[in-house]
Amino acid sequence: MVLYLIGLGLGDESDITVRGLNAVQKCDLIFLEAYTSVLRVDKTKLEEFYGRPVQVADRNCVESEAELILQPAKNGLNVALLVVGDPVCATTHTDLMIRARAEGISVELIHNASIMGAVGACGLQLYNFGQTVSIPFFEDNWRPTSFYSKIKYNKDGGMHTLCLLDIKVKEPDYDAMIRGKTVYLPPRFMDVNTAAKQLLEAEEVHGESVCTKDCLAVGLARLGHKDQCIIAGTLEELVSQDFGKPLHSLIICGDTHDLEMEMLKQYMISNSRYKIQHLTEHESV
Amino acid sequence: MVLYLIGLGLGDESDITVRGLNAVQKCDLIFLEAYTSVLRVDKTKLEEFYGRPVQVADRNCVESEAELILQPAKNGLNVALLVVGDPVCATTHTDLMIRARAEGISVELIHNASIMGAVGACGLQLYNFGQTVSIPFFEDNWRPTSFYSKIKYNKDGGMHTLCLLDIKVKEPDYDAMIRGKTVYLPPRFMDVNTAAKQLLEAEEVHGESVCTKDCLAVGLARLGHKDQCIIAGTLEELVSQDFGKPLHSLIICGDTHDLEMEMLKQYMISNSRYKIQHLTEHESV
Repeated sequence: MVLYLIGLGLGDESDITVRGLNAVQKCDLIFLEAYTSVLRVDKTKLEEFYGRPVQVADRNCVESEAELILQPAKNGLNVALLVVGDPVCATTHTDLMIRARAEGISVELIHNASIMGAVGACGLQLYNFGQTVSIPFFEDNWRPTSFYSKIKYNKDGGMHTLCLLDIKVKEPDYDAMIRGKTVYLPPRFMDVNTAAKQLLEAEEVHGESVCTKDCLAVGLARLGHKDQCIIAGTLEELVSQDFGKPLHSLIICGDTHDLEMEMLKQYMISNSRYKIQHLTEHESV
Repeated sequence: MVLYLIGLGLGDESDITVRGLNAVQKCDLIFLEAYTSVLRVDKTKLEEFYGRPVQVADRNCVESEAELILQPAKNGLNVALLVVGDPVCATTHTDLMIRARAEGISVELIHNASIMGAVGACGLQLYNFGQTVSIPFFEDNWRPTSFYSKIKYNKDGGMHTLCLLDIKVKEPDYDAMIRGKTVYLPPRFMDVNTAAKQLLEAEEVHGESVCTKDCLAVGLARLGHKDQCIIAGTLEELVSQDFGKPLHSLIICGDTHDLEMEMLKQYMISNSRYKIQHLTEHESV
């Protein structure tokens, strides 16, 4: 029948759209992408809200065992895959859509808010963002900085850059594996502080004045939640700000217009060096 | 009390989130941004759906008579402003948020899907989009092509460009004005065909191989609606495709990855010159 890919938005169970809720309630089988469950949307709460059982499908299942999701749809059931944010924000779901259509299954997309749209909440205009980069956790011997040249390109063109921060889920515990056990480490979510430190390190490596200590950046946490936190300041200042629980992301600002700055100021660290250096003369009002 | 800025998403009344619906239903005063009413969301339908009266506020009111919206909130009422898409996608609402906060009014943002996220439905990855451009209706003596250099910058960096197409609402009828009457022309929405033609004209003016006849482009219409239409092909081919009713937008592709192309192919004009020139050798599978 139909495979519904349904965005859950960014907050809790009530951020699903009415259209999405109606679709869920007519599905025979409901999968919840596992990422979701670590992202403060609780499976039990969703089940109560929908009045339907929900199965957790980890990303591995969605990627490599897609048949678990597709086969029932081919056999005449209505199937839903629930995804945090919007279903078209991740490549995983593109792949699933292609496979579903190739097997003759109708796919219905139900959009919702995603982090890539919600970042507009800080006041920076969405049309002024360039390509999005991912910041991976640096390891002892693996400190890739390929994001650097992308941020540089955006910035040279006056554009802001949204940095999505690494999430490690189901990381194998190699020490335990050596002892013959399959153990996973607890999930890790990169915070703004770590991201800012890594960006400053990348600046030291490349030295092209892209993410310097003094550059204007915005840290965002739990966007779309009641307790969301937005703090603007220099990149160095963000290293020591407390953003609280995950999920975090970071913006490196390009050129800012007056209206953008007007809004950003509301989120700026009160004694930010950026404010002192760049905004004091406009503050006379 | 609280000013709620509530995104309605892209489709019909059922695309509001459950959180948004709950907020609307506890508001004393509900404004609907007028843009909305021309965008297939019917005021009467919304009123039925909410069980509450809705007032249409045209963009002029939101921009220059914001007090109509802010004053009641200052006087202790809960006020909602309903916006098609996501409230942080347009600068208008940034300005309203700043003014509200300056007057001590709490602002609550309720996000939803926006065109800038939903374009991912065509298979092009959102993280690979550069800055967004606006294509204005060319007039006899006013044919600005400042979008051209922005598309070029994106493309040189491998990025896709989303082109938002002009909407003319409440355009004064100058002929009638001369006769002393205030008459507005019917609303105009730029279609993909016109946009493609204008881009080709801009290419002729600048000649830097940015939006050539043969470049890969994607036309999108009524994204998020049941009858959405996505067609990929060369820019020249899109000039003569029928996309149906508004709202339209257009993407000029940058570098495409395999997975992106896999998905785009599903939307490609069957005998597209792009397919013949670039994809035939991969088609052997």
